[in-house]
Amino acid sequence: MVKSAFAMERNDNVLLSVTEQCDNVAGTACPSEDAEHFEGVNFSVSAVLPAAGCGERMGVPTPKQFCDILTRPLISYTMQAFEKAQWIKDIVVVVARENTDFMKSVVCKYGHQRITLVEGGSTRHRSIFLGLKAFTETQSCLPSLSKPKVVIIHDAVRPFVEEDLLSRVAIAAHKSGAAGAIRPLVSTVIAASLSGFLDHSLERARYRASEMPQAFLFDIIYEAYLCCSDSDFEYGTECLHLAQQYCNSSAKLIEGPSDLWKVTYKRDLYAAESLFKEMLTEQVWIFAGTGHHTSYLGNLLQDAMQATVKTIKVVSTGIHGNLCLKDVLSVPCYNFVCIATNSSSMQEVKWLTMSVVTANISTLYPVVVVTVHLDDNLGRTAGANIKEDPGGFRHLAKELKPKNVLLYGLLIQGLKGSAQMQESVAEASVIINALIKERSPALTGQLLVA
Amino acid sequence: MVKSAFAMERNDNVLLSVTEQCDNVAGTACPSEDAEHFEGVNFSVSAVLPAAGCGERMGVPTPKQFCDILTRPLISYTMQAFEKAQWIKDIVVVVARENTDFMKSVVCKYGHQRITLVEGGSTRHRSIFLGLKAFTETQSCLPSLSKPKVVIIHDAVRPFVEEDLLSRVAIAAHKSGAAGAIRPLVSTVIAASLSGFLDHSLERARYRASEMPQAFLFDIIYEAYLCCSDSDFEYGTECLHLAQQYCNSSAKLIEGPSDLWKVTYKRDLYAAESLFKEMLTEQVWIFAGTGHHTSYLGNLLQDAMQATVKTIKVVSTGIHGNLCLKDVLSVPCYNFVCIATNSSSMQEVKWLTMSVVTANISTLYPVVVVTVHLDDNLGRTAGANIKEDPGGFRHLAKELKPKNVLLYGLLIQGLKGSAQMQESVAEASVIINALIKERSPALTGQLLVA
Repeated sequence: MVKSAFAMERNDNVLLSVTEQCDNVAGTACPSEDAEHFEGVNFSVSAVLPAAGCGERMGVPTPKQFCDILTRPLISYTMQAFEKAQWIKDIVVVVARENTDFMKSVVCKYGHQRITLVEGGSTRHRSIFLGLKAFTETQSCLPSLSKPKVVIIHDAVRPFVEEDLLSRVAIAAHKSGAAGAIRPLVSTVIAASLSGFLDHSLERARYRASEMPQAFLFDIIYEAYLCCSDSDFEYGTECLHLAQQYCNSSAKLIEGPSDLWKVTYKRDLYAAESLFKEMLTEQVWIFAGTGHHTSYLGNLLQDAMQATVKTIKVVSTGIHGNLCLKDVLSVPCYNFVCIATNSSSMQEVKWLTMSVVTANISTLYPVVVVTVHLDDNLGRTAGANIKEDPGGFRHLAKELKPKNVLLYGLLIQGLKGSAQMQESVAEASVIINALIKERSPALTGQLLVA
Repeated sequence: MVKSAFAMERNDNVLLSVTEQCDNVAGTACPSEDAEHFEGVNFSVSAVLPAAGCGERMGVPTPKQFCDILTRPLISYTMQAFEKAQWIKDIVVVVARENTDFMKSVVCKYGHQRITLVEGGSTRHRSIFLGLKAFTETQSCLPSLSKPKVVIIHDAVRPFVEEDLLSRVAIAAHKSGAAGAIRPLVSTVIAASLSGFLDHSLERARYRASEMPQAFLFDIIYEAYLCCSDSDFEYGTECLHLAQQYCNSSAKLIEGPSDLWKVTYKRDLYAAESLFKEMLTEQVWIFAGTGHHTSYLGNLLQDAMQATVKTIKVVSTGIHGNLCLKDVLSVPCYNFVCIATNSSSMQEVKWLTMSVVTANISTLYPVVVVTVHLDDNLGRTAGANIKEDPGGFRHLAKELKPKNVLLYGLLIQGLKGSAQMQESVAEASVIINALIKERSPALTGQLLVA
């Protein structure tokens, strides 16, 4: 059963829980009752994502985990990364009380699954402990979360974590009790004297930066938290340290990729947005219809864009009202070029954009649709045409924007086979590349010329 | 005298030097013979920027210091940051032999001043030492660089360093022999056992990341390099460590801002580009001309854009052919909105863009010019008009692109005072914001509609 996990406060304020059902369950992968095991994960795994911090380093008023990337909060990307791993059963997200309603709306809007929201504490360690307690305490108003064999702990502000690494830390923790991702140090680390002078510098090769995700046998990390001192709860930050100190469990260290980095400063938000945008440009589908002219143009555009787009496909079957795009896409695609005929361009664009919306492709990421129109100046326009009815086109674009579909128009000038047309196609491919790279909501509805 | 420092190889291949004079000396601040002293820097200071590395961590074939940000190599931004500090006399840039010609072209194209190019060695420490030697060895074919009291060493891939910090490290080094910028650790640092398990974690509060810039009394760091072992030259990375080990000079540590970070990965390039773009959007000038309609529209646009742009100025004197923009700009401005009249819009746009080019405003950064055209549908068009001659407008935009001027057209629809016009102005301000934020070369010459 597809079920969203939601909150209702209990009298002790610790746990919020599953009660509501969300209408807008759409974008993310469905959880299965019998989650597949992933490369050797043959034991139960759940996750805790502490997200109760206020992110004072960012220099922006919104806590960094709630800052928008392509109009969606960062934490939603991280939850999405965990949902992809079907073998992770429950995902407990620990949030500050004042952000609970916001988080509920995020879970609902983006159709997140297997999420339980738990109210956080005043420090990172307190919040993680509260997240772990959700698996052990029986809550009368809750569908109880069963205690997993292994728990993964991960920062809400590291959205690029991959399933492969999650399984590696989980397996290592299952074997050794504790495991954590590490990275080489970028800068030399030094110790300062009390008077602010260099005391000594550490030999860089001997040390590593401790990153997330980390994983633990549940009983080990839970026991470690039970033993924690007030000072640990107040000033500590490192779970690996607690497992070592209180349970004598030294973590297996696992080298992670550079994308693991923690979104800490405003520049990191910019970097994350650019990386997501880059991912979104990987595949482009060109709908070239069945006409002679349009499939000719489709092939020209494919040739011109080949060098910059990883996968570009021309579909020449035309667009039909009931096309389920999600079924025909081999990998997720967020960029569509629709080559319109003179006579019915608006109709085709409406079909395509409707298909994008009904297939839920635009739930998680903005989808770019560029409708390309061959303008041969022969006056062969009839019916609802983009060039003849720019107002209607802009109106359609405005309607689509809240549905996360960014619609742009593009006229290609020149007669078939002419030098002018060759040049226009080259220019058109540059413009389309820019539109799919930048995904600018401000420019939707514009009719560009190549 | 304004002089660019250039290269001619000497027989020992170590030093490249000043011989050529560059025609395109334009963008950067002029050095003065009597450089002003900056807040207490009353001793001679020069700089060494090691830039001979190959940047294998970036995952791109170009060494990171030569990767483009807004079509200009990263290292040019760093040189620019040093040139701003007039009290820094010579800036020695250490480059690999194979990149020497490229670096000469960069210095020439962007009009860099006070630069001497020195050929690097096989490791970071060897390259820095070769840079320092340029101040001590008399080169027959060179205008000799005089040995400074203090030398600042800085990474070519940290372009955001500010004059204030440069002066603070220089002054601290003058007083204490050595000084270096530090930052708090973002991640906990751990030591690993030989078998890949956690040995111990460091108490994060006691340690710092050692960053750049660093500064030294020249004699101290030079002496330290003279004492260096082969192993230091081969594996060492930290200048502060050498000064401490060989000259017993413990560096004063100076807390730097977060923008000091080292561009290491591809995401850092994205982050740097976004930060520069953000800086460029700070100021917008609106040329509203003297007409009734145009100044009315200028004020409306100013009101609409006020919330998103830090400084926005309306100039109602019109644009004249000989306007020297640089003289009238209070702070550097890279965004211009030109409100065109119906009768002569193209003429005004040409004047404005020519002024931008002749004032060298676009040498270092792409300049956005948006020409706004009120389309009241009253048919009052005459002369060279953007709407009537879109081909001419696109042609002009194409001519300006290689000059780093990005020209866009924008039609605002509606009669003066109408509700439609209010709405159009609001939409226009969103479009202009997007154009100045994104600086997309692909979309120049387009005529957008609000």
